[in-house]
Amino acid sequence: MRLRNKPWALDKIAENPHLVVNNPSDWKGKWHQRFGNNNPIHIEIGSGKGRFVSEMAKKHPDINYIGIELQASVIVVALDKAIEANIPNLQLLHINGGQVTDYFEENEVDQIYLNFSDPWPKKKHAKRRLTHEEFLTAYQVVIKPKGSLCFKTDNRGLFEYSLVSFSQFGMILQEVCLDLHAEDESDNVRTEYEEKFSAKGHPIYRVEVKFAN
Amino acid sequence: MRLRNKPWALDKIAENPHLVVNNPSDWKGKWHQRFGNNNPIHIEIGSGKGRFVSEMAKKHPDINYIGIELQASVIVVALDKAIEANIPNLQLLHINGGQVTDYFEENEVDQIYLNFSDPWPKKKHAKRRLTHEEFLTAYQVVIKPKGSLCFKTDNRGLFEYSLVSFSQFGMILQEVCLDLHAEDESDNVRTEYEEKFSAKGHPIYRVEVKFAN
Repeated sequence: MRLRNKPWALDKIAENPHLVVNNPSDWKGKWHQRFGNNNPIHIEIGSGKGRFVSEMAKKHPDINYIGIELQASVIVVALDKAIEANIPNLQLLHINGGQVTDYFEENEVDQIYLNFSDPWPKKKHAKRRLTHEEFLTAYQVVIKPKGSLCFKTDNRGLFEYSLVSFSQFGMILQEVCLDLHAEDESDNVRTEYEEKFSAKGHPIYRVEVKFAN
Repeated sequence: MRLRNKPWALDKIAENPHLVVNNPSDWKGKWHQRFGNNNPIHIEIGSGKGRFVSEMAKKHPDINYIGIELQASVIVVALDKAIEANIPNLQLLHINGGQVTDYFEENEVDQIYLNFSDPWPKKKHAKRRLTHEEFLTAYQVVIKPKGSLCFKTDNRGLFEYSLVSFSQFGMILQEVCLDLHAEDESDNVRTEYEEKFSAKGHPIYRVEVKFAN
């Protein structure tokens, strides 16, 4: 927890309830109301410093984006971006992203993004990986039948694990890329981690999957 | 076709019917008879110069191996290996490997290997890739319900395509490795192509999949 370096973070979050939602479980089933429109809802679980979710929100004004991040010291950086950009289609949630069913109703979400999630490399921690079947079970509840999950990482072990986890859960792969930056990137928004790891020469892996239902 | 460089290849194949099977469709449903035992049958489609299939046969004497290769000038190199090693659990078929249902009965095969298959990189040639759904349909007929398909390649485009093709066909990923030579290789037998492409610095990709039935 890097919060001790930013003791003011929680105060700043509290001062911006129009951007970092207070009591987000109160909005379960009512996110379209909150945004004031019926546009699709895309969520990023583990949005970190927020570059991805804020750039996506600017690029796609007809989609509502929700960035979810547990660490106060990190989400506060995303908050700065949201304040500066003044984007009506972006909200931030300072919560544990694994528990999506506490905050979203069945079929309320059109798309889920997981970007550079913690790899939890030890086998005994596999349950903590955001692509573990327990999390997939929760995502399946909140995501619409035709909605997809997009996952990017530079971590080979986590990507290998996730492909198998998706498949064994019954999800269907739609697209796989094993070197994203070697391809046309016009649709890609790089995250902060993505820049960092790509600069080190790591290939960036990406997959888009759908639930079978 | 590199046959013109080896005009003697067809003669040599004809002279060794105990190793390169004559009229292999006659043995459809009778491969256990041919091997004289009830051991599992593993086939490699596109066995090339035969290092993989012959090394596997030496390593696993309780499994029957069949190497399938269309090119006479290439299978003749595999034949040399088979003659030299004198392995009773290895047979070679000089046929088009895509048409497995002409040569194997339903559920006759325990495992299929595809190693460094022709990538056919142009989209219009996708139907020729050995992981295209038309081939998967044929493999599904001959492979036992619990049998698996193991696929290795250094070709990123083909591997990405194949993962999606397997998944959309309803197959379930069992194991994925995106850098085989970075892992413990005690179970891995390298093919001739694998050595060549690995030496050039290409990562070697591997996946094991099962049909859902």
